[in-house]
Amino acid sequence: GNFPKVHAASGVATVSKAHSKWMADSITDVEVFEQNPNDMKTKMEMMILRMQGEICKELESIDGDKKFRVDRWTREQGGGGITCVMQDGTVFEKAGVNISVVHGTLPQGAVNQMRSRGRKLQGQSLPFFAAGISAVIHPKNPHCPTIHFNYRYFEVTDETGEKEWWFGGGTDLTPYYLVKEDVVHFHKTLKAACDKHNQTFYPKFKKWCDDYFNIPHRGERRGVGGIFFDDLDYADKDELFNFLTTCAEAVIPSYVPIVQKHKNDGYSLGERQWQLLRRGRYVEFNLIYDRGTKFGLQTPGARYESILMSLPLTARWEYRHEPEVGSKEDLLLQVLREPKDWVS
Amino acid sequence: GNFPKVHAASGVATVSKAHSKWMADSITDVEVFEQNPNDMKTKMEMMILRMQGEICKELESIDGDKKFRVDRWTREQGGGGITCVMQDGTVFEKAGVNISVVHGTLPQGAVNQMRSRGRKLQGQSLPFFAAGISAVIHPKNPHCPTIHFNYRYFEVTDETGEKEWWFGGGTDLTPYYLVKEDVVHFHKTLKAACDKHNQTFYPKFKKWCDDYFNIPHRGERRGVGGIFFDDLDYADKDELFNFLTTCAEAVIPSYVPIVQKHKNDGYSLGERQWQLLRRGRYVEFNLIYDRGTKFGLQTPGARYESILMSLPLTARWEYRHEPEVGSKEDLLLQVLREPKDWVS
Repeated sequence: GNFPKVHAASGVATVSKAHSKWMADSITDVEVFEQNPNDMKTKMEMMILRMQGEICKELESIDGDKKFRVDRWTREQGGGGITCVMQDGTVFEKAGVNISVVHGTLPQGAVNQMRSRGRKLQGQSLPFFAAGISAVIHPKNPHCPTIHFNYRYFEVTDETGEKEWWFGGGTDLTPYYLVKEDVVHFHKTLKAACDKHNQTFYPKFKKWCDDYFNIPHRGERRGVGGIFFDDLDYADKDELFNFLTTCAEAVIPSYVPIVQKHKNDGYSLGERQWQLLRRGRYVEFNLIYDRGTKFGLQTPGARYESILMSLPLTARWEYRHEPEVGSKEDLLLQVLREPKDWVS
Repeated sequence: GNFPKVHAASGVATVSKAHSKWMADSITDVEVFEQNPNDMKTKMEMMILRMQGEICKELESIDGDKKFRVDRWTREQGGGGITCVMQDGTVFEKAGVNISVVHGTLPQGAVNQMRSRGRKLQGQSLPFFAAGISAVIHPKNPHCPTIHFNYRYFEVTDETGEKEWWFGGGTDLTPYYLVKEDVVHFHKTLKAACDKHNQTFYPKFKKWCDDYFNIPHRGERRGVGGIFFDDLDYADKDELFNFLTTCAEAVIPSYVPIVQKHKNDGYSLGERQWQLLRRGRYVEFNLIYDRGTKFGLQTPGARYESILMSLPLTARWEYRHEPEVGSKEDLLLQVLREPKDWVS
């Protein structure tokens, strides 16, 4: 590894201790961390390295069988990432937990897209920095939901030298069968994380999530939502970073109890087929509508295997599949067509 | 059905005889056919109705087990279609043969896309007519390739009253294992169809096909190509229609012998898994890059089940799957990465 072994400086002990819990060496050299401990770039990278380690270890311990394959990669145009994927486990059919810390020049598509969201960003080729963690976890058992989360920090310097920065992210749940108390537990955990920082966050970000994870051609949401936000820049930077950290730390308590509860539930072939059909819808959303996937694949030097790790191991498309009215499958569909309030 | 039973007019016998071989009643009333026998709208719709019938009957006879489900649908904004889908057959895992005959006002996305191809089309809301046949056939056996074809006619009237028309289409093959003589047979059949009309067509449309069915993020083509063309308007209209008809008639002879040859081949679980992985790539192309799918899903009132019938029954995504160097899977990949000339 590239972790420096001998150091006398004071911050080193902390970084060194943190390092032992990461899945791989950091992308940025730890000496840069030590020299810039208060830079948001350092804080974000250390936070996502820690979260990746904690979440992967937790999932490995639940699975009990498979371990994560760890790929540390670098990007020719600047930066790199650590992609951790577990496949064909006992509990997890496919789980990917990816961090990336990249910099360079923003691709034109991304600039246009940011401008269309209202960012000024004057100029043509803009230097940027982005650090984020992104994960999708598909359990095998149709009674265990899929979870996705993503937390990221962005910096762009425009032609006039002005530096814009913002945070984005969210966590959302995609169950195959609706268990109301599980969805309520999930949303309550996210709400508590939001409320710790700002009482207006949860209602706003819950709605944003329902609006974002939409499959317009089907008139269905991808799942039962959660929280989603972008362009968060209207408060103290450190306070927003703390909010992001709280959200990332809420992933395990929001999700793991649901998996533990259902991982040994019995299921029929029909329930498995329904899960695979819903995974087909997941693929439709990710490949047709998801902004991250779309701009990721357009980025020169993008590592498409890391971007597409979100796709399930297996998916299914049946022509005009329609669950029986009043069936458990139909009950889920109703909630996907008309999002509900789960916490009130 | 809505086919008029009593008629004394002369053309009726022909239309009535043709009708008995269609999968369902025509979209346009047959009286309109009789009144406008030389209109390209009539000719196209009658051609695609006939081809749909012939191809579906042929596939049913090969399968020997399942029949096509036939859905005749209408579009609120004008026109409709006939979607025929066979699922879970003995030979065919999923086969969709769709025709549509639609008219109305072009959605803005489609106008922009046509302009970016060089069409003038002045004005905002442009009346259009489109008739086409589109099919994707996914056999179960990994030694039988998937085929896709699409033949279509377009008319747009712009603000100045000028009517533009053009033809488009193509046929292409997606094998899971490379059998050189099968691919040569396929390309030779398409070349013969092209050569009957214009010696320059095959080389031009073969290259166009390789360029179109490209998955840039993977650096792979979807399959071994075939022919692809669009904006065909630079010759006598009837002659171009005859070319389209020849191409559509070449589908069965180009493809069916390959299916007959391999439908009973033995295969291993590993070969089946490879087929499902390649189907994942098929999904990636169709949902991320295919123009027809993209603009189809954006069209108000689009019947998404007909558009997405192209997706396979099952698909698979493994993180960083890499076939062994020199394996049969690797041999296919080499051809997908570097398209070859099959006829020379």
